[in-house]
Amino acid sequence: MTDVNVNSESLERLESEVRTYSRSFPTVFKRARGATLTDENDKDYIDFLAGAGTLNYGHNNPKLKKALLDYIMDDGITHGLDMWTSAKRDFLETLEQVIFKPRGLDYKVQFCGPTGTNAIEAALRIARNTTGRTNIVSFTNAFHGVTLGALATTANSKFRHAAAMPTAGVSFMPYCGYMDGDSSSLAFLEKTLTDNSSGVDYPAAILLETVQGEGGINVASIEWLQGIEKICRKHGILLIVDDIQAGCGRTGKFFSFEHAGLKPDIVTSSKSLSGYGLPFAAVFMKPELDQWKPGEYNGTFRGNNLAFVTATTAMREYWRNDDLARDVTRKGKIVEHRFKQLARAYQAAGIEASERGRGLMRGLDILQGDLADEIVADCFENGLVIETSGPEGQVVKCLCPLLISDDELNKGLDILEQAVKRQLDRLNSNQTRKSA
Amino acid sequence: MTDVNVNSESLERLESEVRTYSRSFPTVFKRARGATLTDENDKDYIDFLAGAGTLNYGHNNPKLKKALLDYIMDDGITHGLDMWTSAKRDFLETLEQVIFKPRGLDYKVQFCGPTGTNAIEAALRIARNTTGRTNIVSFTNAFHGVTLGALATTANSKFRHAAAMPTAGVSFMPYCGYMDGDSSSLAFLEKTLTDNSSGVDYPAAILLETVQGEGGINVASIEWLQGIEKICRKHGILLIVDDIQAGCGRTGKFFSFEHAGLKPDIVTSSKSLSGYGLPFAAVFMKPELDQWKPGEYNGTFRGNNLAFVTATTAMREYWRNDDLARDVTRKGKIVEHRFKQLARAYQAAGIEASERGRGLMRGLDILQGDLADEIVADCFENGLVIETSGPEGQVVKCLCPLLISDDELNKGLDILEQAVKRQLDRLNSNQTRKSA
Amino acid sequence: MTDVNVNSESLERLESEVRTYSRSFPTVFKRARGATLTDENDKDYIDFLAGAGTLNYGHNNPKLKKALLDYIMDDGITHGLDMWTSAKRDFLETLEQVIFKPRGLDYKVQFCGPTGTNAIEAALRIARNTTGRTNIVSFTNAFHGVTLGALATTANSKFRHAAAMPTAGVSFMPYCGYMDGDSSSLAFLEKTLTDNSSGVDYPAAILLETVQGEGGINVASIEWLQGIEKICRKHGILLIVDDIQAGCGRTGKFFSFEHAGLKPDIVTSSKSLSGYGLPFAAVFMKPELDQWKPGEYNGTFRGNNLAFVTATTAMREYWRNDDLARDVTRKGKIVEHRFKQLARAYQAAGIEASERGRGLMRGLDILQGDLADEIVADCFENGLVIETSGPEGQVVKCLCPLLISDDELNKGLDILEQAVKRQLDRLNSNQTRKSA
Amino acid sequence: MTDVNVNSESLERLESEVRTYSRSFPTVFKRARGATLTDENDKDYIDFLAGAGTLNYGHNNPKLKKALLDYIMDDGITHGLDMWTSAKRDFLETLEQVIFKPRGLDYKVQFCGPTGTNAIEAALRIARNTTGRTNIVSFTNAFHGVTLGALATTANSKFRHAAAMPTAGVSFMPYCGYMDGDSSSLAFLEKTLTDNSSGVDYPAAILLETVQGEGGINVASIEWLQGIEKICRKHGILLIVDDIQAGCGRTGKFFSFEHAGLKPDIVTSSKSLSGYGLPFAAVFMKPELDQWKPGEYNGTFRGNNLAFVTATTAMREYWRNDDLARDVTRKGKIVEHRFKQLARAYQAAGIEASERGRGLMRGLDILQGDLADEIVADCFENGLVIETSGPEGQVVKCLCPLLISDDELNKGLDILEQAVKRQLDRLNSNQTRKSA
Repeated sequence: MTDVNVNSESLERLESEVRTYSRSFPTVFKRARGATLTDENDKDYIDFLAGAGTLNYGHNNPKLKKALLDYIMDDGITHGLDMWTSAKRDFLETLEQVIFKPRGLDYKVQFCGPTGTNAIEAALRIARNTTGRTNIVSFTNAFHGVTLGALATTANSKFRHAAAMPTAGVSFMPYCGYMDGDSSSLAFLEKTLTDNSSGVDYPAAILLETVQGEGGINVASIEWLQGIEKICRKHGILLIVDDIQAGCGRTGKFFSFEHAGLKPDIVTSSKSLSGYGLPFAAVFMKPELDQWKPGEYNGTFRGNNLAFVTATTAMREYWRNDDLARDVTRKGKIVEHRFKQLARAYQAAGIEASERGRGLMRGLDILQGDLADEIVADCFENGLVIETSGPEGQVVKCLCPLLISDDELNKGLDILEQAVKRQLDRLNSNQTRKSA
Repeated sequence: MTDVNVNSESLERLESEVRTYSRSFPTVFKRARGATLTDENDKDYIDFLAGAGTLNYGHNNPKLKKALLDYIMDDGITHGLDMWTSAKRDFLETLEQVIFKPRGLDYKVQFCGPTGTNAIEAALRIARNTTGRTNIVSFTNAFHGVTLGALATTANSKFRHAAAMPTAGVSFMPYCGYMDGDSSSLAFLEKTLTDNSSGVDYPAAILLETVQGEGGINVASIEWLQGIEKICRKHGILLIVDDIQAGCGRTGKFFSFEHAGLKPDIVTSSKSLSGYGLPFAAVFMKPELDQWKPGEYNGTFRGNNLAFVTATTAMREYWRNDDLARDVTRKGKIVEHRFKQLARAYQAAGIEASERGRGLMRGLDILQGDLADEIVADCFENGLVIETSGPEGQVVKCLCPLLISDDELNKGLDILEQAVKRQLDRLNSNQTRKSA
Repeated sequence: MTDVNVNSESLERLESEVRTYSRSFPTVFKRARGATLTDENDKDYIDFLAGAGTLNYGHNNPKLKKALLDYIMDDGITHGLDMWTSAKRDFLETLEQVIFKPRGLDYKVQFCGPTGTNAIEAALRIARNTTGRTNIVSFTNAFHGVTLGALATTANSKFRHAAAMPTAGVSFMPYCGYMDGDSSSLAFLEKTLTDNSSGVDYPAAILLETVQGEGGINVASIEWLQGIEKICRKHGILLIVDDIQAGCGRTGKFFSFEHAGLKPDIVTSSKSLSGYGLPFAAVFMKPELDQWKPGEYNGTFRGNNLAFVTATTAMREYWRNDDLARDVTRKGKIVEHRFKQLARAYQAAGIEASERGRGLMRGLDILQGDLADEIVADCFENGLVIETSGPEGQVVKCLCPLLISDDELNKGLDILEQAVKRQLDRLNSNQTRKSA
Repeated sequence: MTDVNVNSESLERLESEVRTYSRSFPTVFKRARGATLTDENDKDYIDFLAGAGTLNYGHNNPKLKKALLDYIMDDGITHGLDMWTSAKRDFLETLEQVIFKPRGLDYKVQFCGPTGTNAIEAALRIARNTTGRTNIVSFTNAFHGVTLGALATTANSKFRHAAAMPTAGVSFMPYCGYMDGDSSSLAFLEKTLTDNSSGVDYPAAILLETVQGEGGINVASIEWLQGIEKICRKHGILLIVDDIQAGCGRTGKFFSFEHAGLKPDIVTSSKSLSGYGLPFAAVFMKPELDQWKPGEYNGTFRGNNLAFVTATTAMREYWRNDDLARDVTRKGKIVEHRFKQLARAYQAAGIEASERGRGLMRGLDILQGDLADEIVADCFENGLVIETSGPEGQVVKCLCPLLISDDELNKGLDILEQAVKRQLDRLNSNQTRKSA
C-alpha cells in the first residue's frame, strides 16, 4: 500500500491500528518549519492541517524555539507537578496582562493535565460542583474529547460507540443551523429548559464551541451565540466555551467568543495555547467558581513548564497588538474567496457544495466523504497536507498556520484547486460515459 | 503564610485553589539538575519527589537534554498528531529491541493523549471492546487517574466525590494485605468472580498496580501478583498492569511486573517514560487485542515527538544492560535500611510506624497524616522535597531520582532523620509535660 | 384543613407525605359503583378520574364482579407465581381470539409484575437485548413510570429529581406538536437518527404514548404516528407503544394505535387491562422478540389470577363487537363539545384555553395550574371527582368510565361548567375591581 | 414434553419464554386451599412453595376469604389510586395497633406500587434523598427485585445481565458467612466504610435481608445483624431491612429482624403482607425520613384496597397474640430435624449437604443444582410442589404455609425423603456399576 521508498515497516508493525493520519499521509516526516512539513525523502508539503489547529504560529516557530532552547539550556524546570516556578509565574502574569485585562476578563487559571479532554473534564466538574446540578447541555456535532466524562458531551457515534459504556449526565440540543425550516434552535432550547417536563434535566451548564471544528466547521451565528448567553444568564446556567480548537487567534480574535462579545463563565483552552505544539491545556474560570479543594483534580503533567515558556513568548510576540488578528481576518478572506470559487465549480457539476468558516478556520463542504477523501489523496500526492471533518468526513478543512505566507497559502490553494479540477473532470467524463 | 522573600503574589491570585504542591513547598523554583531543585533565592533542595516518579533519570538529565536540544535545533517534528515521524520510528524500534524483546514481550503500542489517565481510559476500552464485557475489577487504594472513566477505577473518595457524578462499571476488591486476619484476598477475589451471585459482574479485566503509589506504597507480594495472573488466565479475564508510577525502573526492573514474571495483556506507561518530564503516555497491548478501528480513540497530543526523542535516548543509555536496575536495587536497600531505623525510632516512642517498598519506591508509614505533614514541612525548611501518600497522607514517600548520587541520597536521608528526631523530641517533651 | 366530619386523623398521621389524591379529594371513600364514588358521609361523587384510566368499565362492574366472586368462592388459584392455571389459559385464549386475531396482531404475552412501570422495564430490556443497542428514544412530556429504568424514559422533572441519581440510556425528542413554528418534529427526529454525529446514539427502540395522559392529554396526529412507524421500519428500530393509559378502549378503539393502523413491535398494557381495578400488567411482543431465557425477568405477582378472571370477562362482555368502541366515540364527542364551549368561555375572558383529546381521553387546557386546581376543588365540593395533568397541572382531564350513563356524564359536565362559570365570574369581578 | 393430559397448548404458544415455574411444575392448576394445590386432572399437591413466601396463611384462607368476599359484595372501593378509603384507614390503624406499637416501632407508611421491587425503589430514594448520598451497600447473594433501581442491589448475574445496561450506585459486600477462614465480614465492611480510599463511596444506607431467600436460605447470625446495626448507628448510615420474603411471620416473628432486636430506619414489606396472595407492598420508615413531596413517587395501583382488607384481617386473626409465632417456631424445628436427617443421608453418600434456616424458611443445600432439580421433579411427580434457590439452584427450599397442618407437613417431608432416598440409591448403584 505504502510507497516502497517509505521506511515504515516497523511503524506499521508496532503501532496500534487506531492510528489515522498516517493512513491519509503515508510517509515518514522528519522536519518541519513554518507551514512546511518535510518527509524523509526530502519532499516538502504545505501544511493546511497544522496539528488540527495546534500550530497556529507554525512548526518550530523561530521566536518560540529560541525561548524554548534558552530555557532548556539553562536547566529551567521541565517538570514540577504543580509547584510554583518562574515560568509559571511569567505565563500567568502575561496571560493576565496581554490577554485577560485588555478583553475585560477576570479569570482564575486551572492547570489540568495537558490535553483538551482533561480541561473539559475539569470544566464539567466545576460546573456540576458549583451549581449542585448534574446535567450539561451539549450540541449536535460537538467534539470535546474522548475520556469518559468529556465523551459524554461529544456527539460523534464513532467515539461514543468505542467507549463500550453508556454515558450519562448530558443532553444534546440542535446547534445553530441544525434544524430545518424556519424553526429556531434557540427557541427550542429555551422551551426545553423552562419546560419541567421536557426530559432535559435542568442543567449546570451549556457547553459549546463557537465554530465546531471536528463537527465540520459549523459556524454559530453571532446572534445565536448571544442568544445562548442570554438564556444562560436568564436561567442561572453556566456558559462554558470550549475554545480548544477555535481559540488562540484561529478565528481572527484571540478568543473565538470575542466576535459575539461573550463573557463565558468557564473557558477551556489547549491546542495552540503553548504555541509550539507542546502538550498544554488550561481552564479559565470566573473567580467565584474556583471552589476546588486542594488536589481534588490532579494529574502528573499539570504544568508543562516548557509550554509555559513558549506560550508566554507567543503572547508577547503576537498578542500585544492586533496585527496578527487583522492578518488572520485578511487571509481568511483569501481562503473564503477561493473556497467559494471551488464550491461554485462543484455546483456547476451538480454537487451542492458550500463554503463556511470564520477567520482561518474554514471548510469546503462537498457533501460526500469519498469525494473529500479523493481530494485529500490528490493534494497529498501534490504536496499539500489537508484533512476532512464533519460526520461523514465530507468537509475539506483549512486550518493552515496563521503565520503562513501569502505565497504558501496561495500555493496550497492552487494544489487544492487542481485536485478539485481533476476530480470534476473525472466525474464529468464518467457521467458522459454513462450517458453515452 | 508564604515567606516574604517568595515572589508569589500573582501565582496565589491567578492560579486555582486546586493547586497542592505549592502549598507544601511554598517557594518559586527556577532551575533543576539531577536530584537538585533550586528556587529563586538560590536555595537548593534535594528532590525525593522527582515529579511523583516522573523524573527517574533526574531533572534535565544531560544525555537526554543533548538529544532534545539537537532535535529541536534541527527543526525535528514537534507536533504531528499521529503522523509517522522518524522520531516515532526510532522510539518504537528501540522499545522493541531494548525493552520488549529481551523480556519476551510482544506488544503493539497505542499512543494516546500524553497523560496516564488517557492511557487508562484507552486500556479500559480495549478490555471492554475485545471481551464484550463491561465490568473492571480494581482495588482498594488504587489510583489510576481522574478523568471520568479512569476515576471509576480510582478508590480515593476525594477524587470520586469531586466528580459530582456516580461512576459505573467497576468493582473494587481488597488489595494484597488489605484484609485483616488470615483471610486471603485472592481466595475472596476468586470466589467473587466464580460465584454468579456475588454482585460482581463477570469482568473484562483486572486492573492493578504492583506497588500502589498514591495509595500509600502498598506492595503486592510476588505470590499475590502471580495469583492474580493465574485467576485471569483461568477465567479468561484480561490482566492490565498500570505501570505508570512503578514502571521505568522505579522498582529495580524496567517493568514492575517483571519481579513476579507476569505477562500482562495490557500495560499502561507514562510518567518516566519520556525520561525528561515531558508529557507522554502509551498503552502496550498483546497484538490480538489491537482491534481498534482507525481513529476510534484520539487526542491532539497523541504523539509527543520531543518525548519520543528523550525516551529513545533514555532506553539506549540506561536499559541496554542491567547496571541501572542493579543500582536501583542497591540504593533501595540503603533507603530501606534507613527507613527501618526511623520506623524503630517511632516504635520506641509508641507509634507503630513501619517501612515498606520495592526498589526505590519506598514509604515510611507513621500512621498519622498530621505527623507526616510536620515531617514534610521540616524537611522542606532544611532542603529536602519529600511528599506523603496514602489515604490519610500518613506515609512519607521516597521516590528520588534513580540516578541520585549516594552522597545526595544520604544527605536527603539525614535531613529526614533530623526531622524525625526533632518530631520525636517534641512528642516526648509534650508527653513528659502532660504526665508532669 | 380537612372537614371535621372526615375521620382522617390516623390516615394523616400514618401515611407518608407522598400521598396526593387525598389532598385534592379530602374525604374517606367507602363504596363505589359504576361512575359513582360514595364517601363515609354518604355523599356521592361522579367519577371523571376513574383510577386515572384504570376503571374503564366503572367501579365494581357487576358482570366482572360476578365472575370474580364466583372464582374466589370456588377457591380458584389466587396466587401462583407464573405457574399455569385455568384462569391464565382462559385469559390468553380470549386475548388471542377477541383482541389479537380480529386486529391482525400476532403477539406473545409476558406477565411481568402487575404495574405499568414493570411492563415498561421489561419492554426496554426486550428492545435492548434483541437489538444489542442501549439507547431508547422517548419524548417530551412522556410518562412511563418511576422505577429507575422506566423513569429514565419519563420526562417530568418532579419524578426524575426524586430519584437522586442521573439516569442513562434514553434520548428525549420533541413529541408531536412540541416544536413551535412550522418545523416538523418527525424531520428533526429522522435527521437526528440518521446523523451519526447528533449525540443521539442509534436507538434500540422508540417508545411512545399515542395520547400522552400524564403529560397533559397531548394527542399525536395520525400522520405523526404513521411517520414514527415509518422511521422505525426504515431504520430497523423497534416501535414500543405504551398503551397503559390510552389502551383498553379509552380512545374509542381497544388499542389506541389502531387509529393510525400501527403494528407496534412491543405493546405495554396495564391500568384497565383487568377491568376491575386489580393490579395487572402485561407486555405483548412480536414472537421473534421473545428471546428471554427462563426467569431472566421475574416478580412475585407476575400473574394475578383474579385479574385474569375479570380481564377475560371484560373482553368477552365488551369487545366481541364494536358497540362499546362506537359508544366511546359518541360520548367522546359529547365531552369534546362541552369542553370546547368551556374553552370558548375562557377565551372570552382572555384566557387562551383549548380542548383536545381522542375518544374519552380529553383535556381542557386552561394554561394555569392554579386556575385548574380551583376548578378541581369547586367540582369536588359539588360532587365531581376530576383531576388535572400536564407539566403545570394546567389541563383539566376527563377520564370518566367508558360505561358512564349519558345522564351521569352530562351531570358531571354540568358541575364542571358551573365551576368554570364561578371562576370566570370571580376573575371578571376581580378585574372589574382592579380597573375600578 | 408435557403430559398429554395437560391442556397447555395455548399456554405454551402464547406465553413468553420467560416463564419458569410452569417448567418445573408442568400442569395446569385450577384450585387451591390451605397447603394444597389441585390441578385440572384433580391431582392434589402439597405446597411447600406457597407463592415463594406469599401465602404464609395458605391458599384462599377462609377467614381472609370471607372478609374479601364481604367487601367485594358490598361494593367496597376496589381501586382508588391513593385516595383515602375506609379500608386503608382500617389497615393503617390495625398495623399501628397490632404490629408497630407492641414492638416499639414508630413508622410512617408509604404505599408504593404493589410489588416488592417498587418498595425497594422507593426505599432507596428515601435513603438517597434524606442523606444526600448516592451509594447503597448491598450484599453477595442479595435479591431485591429486577426493576433497574432495585436490580442494582440484586447480586445474581442472571438478572443483572438481562438488563443490558450497567447499574450504578451500589457496592456489594460479603454477607454473613460468605468469606472463608476466620475473617470477619463485619470487620471488612467497617474497614471499607471508614477507609476513604476503599473505592466504596460513603453510603446512604445498608440494605439487607436477615435471611436471604432467593440467595439460598443464607441466615445472618444475630451477632452479625446487630453488628451491622451498630455500624449504621456509629457512622450515620441508614439501615434498610428488606423483609419482603422473610417477614410476616415466616421466621417465627412478624418481622424477621425482631430476632436480633433491630430497629431499622426503613423496612420494605410485600409478599405475605396482604395474606391472600394479592399484589401489595409498602415501605415503613421512621417519621423523620418522610421527606417526600406530594406525588414524587407514584403508581396506579399504590393502594390495593382488596389487599388492605385481607391484610387487616390477617393481622387481627393471627398477630394479636404470639400463638402463630410459637407454632411457626415449633414447625420450623420439625423441618429442621427432617432436613438434618436428609443432609446426613447425603453426607453418608459423600455429598457434603447441609441444613439451614430460621423458622419456616429452611433450606437443604445439596451443593449441585442438577441433583436439586431431580429432587424437585421427583417430588412433583409424587404430589409435592417444592423449589430450589441459591446461585446454582442447589438449595431445596421449604417455604410451606405457616398454617400447614402437622399431617400435611409430615406428608410433604415424607415425599421429599422418598425422593432423596431414590436419588441416593441411583447415585449409589451408578457408583457401584462404575467401580465394578
